[in-house]
Amino acid sequence: MQQTPKVYTCFTPALYHLYQNEQAIVVVIDIFRATSAICTAFQYGVEKMIPVASLEEAHQYKKMGYLTAAERNAEKLDGFDFGNSPFGFMDPIVEGKTIAISTTNGTQAIEKAKGTAGIAIGSFLNISALAKWLVKQNKDVIMLCSGWKNRFNIEDTIFAGALTNKLIDLGNYETDCDSTIAAIHLYELAFNDMFQFLDNSSHRKRLKLLNLENDIKYCLSQDITDVVPIIDGSFIVEVTKFEQAKALQIKMASV
Amino acid sequence: MQQTPKVYTCFTPALYHLYQNEQAIVVVIDIFRATSAICTAFQYGVEKMIPVASLEEAHQYKKMGYLTAAERNAEKLDGFDFGNSPFGFMDPIVEGKTIAISTTNGTQAIEKAKGTAGIAIGSFLNISALAKWLVKQNKDVIMLCSGWKNRFNIEDTIFAGALTNKLIDLGNYETDCDSTIAAIHLYELAFNDMFQFLDNSSHRKRLKLLNLENDIKYCLSQDITDVVPIIDGSFIVEVTKFEQAKALQIKMASV
Repeated sequence: MQQTPKVYTCFTPALYHLYQNEQAIVVVIDIFRATSAICTAFQYGVEKMIPVASLEEAHQYKKMGYLTAAERNAEKLDGFDFGNSPFGFMDPIVEGKTIAISTTNGTQAIEKAKGTAGIAIGSFLNISALAKWLVKQNKDVIMLCSGWKNRFNIEDTIFAGALTNKLIDLGNYETDCDSTIAAIHLYELAFNDMFQFLDNSSHRKRLKLLNLENDIKYCLSQDITDVVPIIDGSFIVEVTKFEQAKALQIKMASV
Repeated sequence: MQQTPKVYTCFTPALYHLYQNEQAIVVVIDIFRATSAICTAFQYGVEKMIPVASLEEAHQYKKMGYLTAAERNAEKLDGFDFGNSPFGFMDPIVEGKTIAISTTNGTQAIEKAKGTAGIAIGSFLNISALAKWLVKQNKDVIMLCSGWKNRFNIEDTIFAGALTNKLIDLGNYETDCDSTIAAIHLYELAFNDMFQFLDNSSHRKRLKLLNLENDIKYCLSQDITDVVPIIDGSFIVEVTKFEQAKALQIKMASV
């Protein structure tokens, strides 16, 4: 008998070792803005992304002719094609391309999560599509919040609560994890007006100073796209295309 | 000009290195039940407590003739005089005594916090007295939640929110820390009926299985005592007595 899958929420990559579970699917969350930007890039037709933890690696990819995205402390870095604003990826230039990406928190979280049953990229932009895909997998889910430099942040937590609620609505998920219970409470407090709720949050203040209020509003929009980016080896790919390619390979092999 | 003191909340000892600040006072929080038990012991007249991280050390103190308290996984351990139920310390035997204490999470948190401007023991039982004392110190405050085996827990977080609200009411504290903002939100959701709010929390379930519902209710009672236990070297002592003794020493030295 299949056990009821469980949801866990890990507030920062620094605590990930306490939640690590090879059987689980990890949802990497960096609402402001890495995972929102990645979802947008796939929505606009990017073929693959290469998450790299260090800027050095990002530079290497740049030298090899790849499009590259790099952000530190909420700012796009000179010499790269993109930062991590979703708006930057709304450009026909990304279609069919492979983009290397390095961000302050998000790509580090992806690195930590390797070695599990699957890693998906979560944002409000693709929340319902992601929830449906997760329910099909029927495995434990670890919400891995990227946080801010290993500290807890509110926006990633609220998303973890929102996605947990969707999983409980669509599937038969359970949770006995205090972080997840707290995340649900915070989401339910926030959901009427997340933008207002986050007014005092540390990262929203950081982005406000950089005139990125529009980015924030956009990153809080729900169900803008059906893409579900997942990790395949060293790449981020879109799951539907990935599954189609796999099905084709199987068909070709059997001919 | 004195800067406005700030409040930070560290959800688990595993994240403490991110918050460490020699100028701050650390409030160690382990609502269920170590810090509630410590406050109760001082209320009933204990002279000093010796927090020890390992059971081995607790055994050493026992051999030396000290009263000892030891708990692991919410249960009192055989061979010791007390567990970490507050009710256990409501006994005339504790008056004037020194008790060594080791608990799953609480004493480990105290160990981590050493080397700051001060360490105080927080619980709902002494929340107002503690808030008043903190305001007098006028320093940054780090709420150090003991959590459960380095994971986040809700009850410690709610207390951090409650104490922050008191500090903001009584003093001129500020916070730009997302964990503190989340803690305030969770406290405000919970405060009408904390017992009910915590119904689903992981540790309340753990204690319920052990028939410790009365302990939980007691640990959520506010302002039962005015004691403020603080760390003085290797000991926990009550701050009023500590200050009286210090004043007396100064007086004696000047005679």
